[in-house]
Amino acid sequence: MKNKKINISEKLKKFTDYWSPRVVAEMNDYQFKLAKISGEFIWHHHESTDEVFFVIKGSMSIEFRDGIVELSQGEMYVVPKGVEHKPHAEEECHIMLIEPRGIINTGEIKNELTAVNDNWI
Amino acid sequence: MKNKKINISEKLKKFTDYWSPRVVAEMNDYQFKLAKISGEFIWHHHESTDEVFFVIKGSMSIEFRDGIVELSQGEMYVVPKGVEHKPHAEEECHIMLIEPRGIINTGEIKNELTAVNDNWI
Repeated sequence: MKNKKINISEKLKKFTDYWSPRVVAEMNDYQFKLAKISGEFIWHHHESTDEVFFVIKGSMSIEFRDGIVELSQGEMYVVPKGVEHKPHAEEECHIMLIEPRGIINTGEIKNELTAVNDNWI
Repeated sequence: MKNKKINISEKLKKFTDYWSPRVVAEMNDYQFKLAKISGEFIWHHHESTDEVFFVIKGSMSIEFRDGIVELSQGEMYVVPKGVEHKPHAEEECHIMLIEPRGIINTGEIKNELTAVNDNWI
């Protein structure tokens, strides 16, 4: 009983900024992150890993070079490693991301949207 | 856009049996599984990996040798590797499990509750 349970709603009350994932749990070398998103993110990819998007509240889209996926509450999507994608949300959307520890939100790019890594709440 | 989106509610309509996890997604060498549970499971552990429980609907408990954790909808828990645990649900509960591909639900034990592995829906 080493760990504490994680209540997603409670964790989401602890921050308000967009595109800044907060780590809530770790399983082996993978992290579960919560993020609030709104508006357009940038095109990016993750060279070494798949990335899971799980919509907790609201809806979002993930644009790919060959199409777009619309996701609503209770839907998830696995972005394969190396595949360019651009997340977007018309209105505020709450998501969970699952990916290996150390992954940077903007992938191979560094700019003003690059979030602090390993930021726990 | 290689993958399809996964709708958790739709996937949960595709099976009714208890304690028989169905794989709905794969990220690198990890799998996302849905399970319906009711009643008592058995004491077991996973020697090589942590295991994540995420409650989609209803409530459940995880008993440890030194305590018990009660989980409701929207709550998650990371069972550390090697730690003995016994899941339980008073009433039908729907959960998501996240763990490496190849993990057996009853851990080191094989009995009538041991489910078919890598069972996709």
